[in-house]
Amino acid sequence: MSAETRSPIASLPIALDAAGGDSGAAPNVEGAVRAARAGVSVLLVGERVALHAELGKFQGSAALPIEIVDASDVIGMDEHASDVRSRTGASINVCTRLVKEGQAAAAVSMGHSGATMASALLTFGRIRGVERPAILTHLPARGGMTTLLDAGANADVKASYFAQWARLATVYLKVLEDQENPTVGLLSIGEEDHKGSALVLEAHALLRGLHGQGINFHGNVEGRDIFLGTTDIVVTDGFTGNVVLKLAEGEAKVMFGWIKDALNSGLKSRLGGLLARGSLRGLAERMDPSTYGASILIGVKGLAFIGHGSADATAVKNALLRAARAYEGRLLPRLEAAFGEQGISAPVAR
Amino acid sequence: MSAETRSPIASLPIALDAAGGDSGAAPNVEGAVRAARAGVSVLLVGERVALHAELGKFQGSAALPIEIVDASDVIGMDEHASDVRSRTGASINVCTRLVKEGQAAAAVSMGHSGATMASALLTFGRIRGVERPAILTHLPARGGMTTLLDAGANADVKASYFAQWARLATVYLKVLEDQENPTVGLLSIGEEDHKGSALVLEAHALLRGLHGQGINFHGNVEGRDIFLGTTDIVVTDGFTGNVVLKLAEGEAKVMFGWIKDALNSGLKSRLGGLLARGSLRGLAERMDPSTYGASILIGVKGLAFIGHGSADATAVKNALLRAARAYEGRLLPRLEAAFGEQGISAPVAR
Repeated sequence: MSAETRSPIASLPIALDAAGGDSGAAPNVEGAVRAARAGVSVLLVGERVALHAELGKFQGSAALPIEIVDASDVIGMDEHASDVRSRTGASINVCTRLVKEGQAAAAVSMGHSGATMASALLTFGRIRGVERPAILTHLPARGGMTTLLDAGANADVKASYFAQWARLATVYLKVLEDQENPTVGLLSIGEEDHKGSALVLEAHALLRGLHGQGINFHGNVEGRDIFLGTTDIVVTDGFTGNVVLKLAEGEAKVMFGWIKDALNSGLKSRLGGLLARGSLRGLAERMDPSTYGASILIGVKGLAFIGHGSADATAVKNALLRAARAYEGRLLPRLEAAFGEQGISAPVAR
Repeated sequence: MSAETRSPIASLPIALDAAGGDSGAAPNVEGAVRAARAGVSVLLVGERVALHAELGKFQGSAALPIEIVDASDVIGMDEHASDVRSRTGASINVCTRLVKEGQAAAAVSMGHSGATMASALLTFGRIRGVERPAILTHLPARGGMTTLLDAGANADVKASYFAQWARLATVYLKVLEDQENPTVGLLSIGEEDHKGSALVLEAHALLRGLHGQGINFHGNVEGRDIFLGTTDIVVTDGFTGNVVLKLAEGEAKVMFGWIKDALNSGLKSRLGGLLARGSLRGLAERMDPSTYGASILIGVKGLAFIGHGSADATAVKNALLRAARAYEGRLLPRLEAAFGEQGISAPVAR
């Protein structure tokens, strides 16, 4: 890769698993083109001939900071995540290896999320002090968004993970969203300290003890607080977090369907719907997961972003911009510093 | 209590904890009046003088099948559930005792839900074969509603509970909703049988083994399936279930706020909102928890319905009607029969 492809934003390109996702290369390539126009250089990893043809559809794409890295194998959505061990030439493995070897700033994939997690964990390893990496994601909330983790990497957890995840998410919001001292809520079934499962009670005591030491612990929050935006961060186990994420998406989808039906029931409603269309479209965008582009697998020693299989070009573009910002903001060294791995001064007081 | 007060629907009155809930007696009394007009007899349990005054506000209430049972003590929303042990004269304890003694068909409370659960469990005991009672509730779903349990009674669970709850909910839907063979989904983080926490994998194997023996087991479902209505029943632990319930309510509330904002942004949208108002109100009703009135504490040897603290008169009325229907449909003996406690023929094949 030549120096000319480096963008002014990220000093290294982002490796995009261009074959990943439900719709194949098209949204990935379009997203890469749009990100490149915004100044992010991209390595499109996948079948060279197909990607070249797809890229050729965009006028002026030859002048953009986009290069193709050939990888003919791709782990399909219905294959096993464990395949990443044997299929070293699979596109997601090529992406994480490019990061590991210092040729890319981050790996981004809209493909098989289990395979992406497995590849990142195998290739990067864990940050010292982090027992398990977590999926960090965002949900829309009153007044902005709520950052949720773990959204599904760990179905079975220990209380110690919660404290580590709270620390990781705190640094993440500091770097990516310029939040100085984000609040952390522990998801439970009552606001009172003594409410929750045995696991959550243990995690509560741990987090309470770390309050002020790089974690701004608010206390317990309930399901409703996620959308109310009571805290900036909500930590929970990967089982509950995954249920939350999929429930939230499912509810929004079904509610929008009902709104649509309501605005199609009779002439008066239909006219009303036409008049209010613009405003309601803004609302739909607000609820759309593609706004944030992708989740990050946090806690590994490398940047890996995992998107929705149904991601469109906008989601891909946003994921690439977010990955570039994470690299630019030195997210990884700052996460490592927060866990005291490196000798550099910790950005988060301990 | 005289025989004249018995309604044509339920042969016994329903005991209503008339002091319970965030708004005190008013919505309870109004709900009781509306239920009585619909043919359900009610025992209003609470402070006699206050209830008498409240009841007097409704024209013709003297002729309705409503009686007042005096109980001056009430367990407040901010008090401890364990208080039910010592405060035997508290309104919720009077309600459950009336049921236990055969003077009421069911207890209904919009008050302290922990206290209601504790009082019902202490007074009624458990159905033989049921290790822990669960809170069974309903959520709106595409095509109707989804029945969810446990919605919060048990934060820590064993796999065996899931199988018992699936059986209880199956009989409940048979009796209350005339569903012959409702499908049961196990909430997990992937549809495949091998996905989930260690606990869920164990529960999956148990439920799989019981398929066809009174339980129509569909397999795993995900968070999104609750609103999609993939199965009639969704079983989960009380921690996840409570998070689901409160998240669903919180998301609906925040989304309606945003819809309102969207329809107030500019003249065109405002006009559109006015035209579509009727249809959108129908949608709001669909999402409103008061439609179903109350949840049931299922698995105890008596009928106990637990409503929202914020319940309005409609929710109270619906809860009373539902309680009467449960009694009328012989829910309790049919639940006991499903667990083989009584000699009568089981309505659910085992």
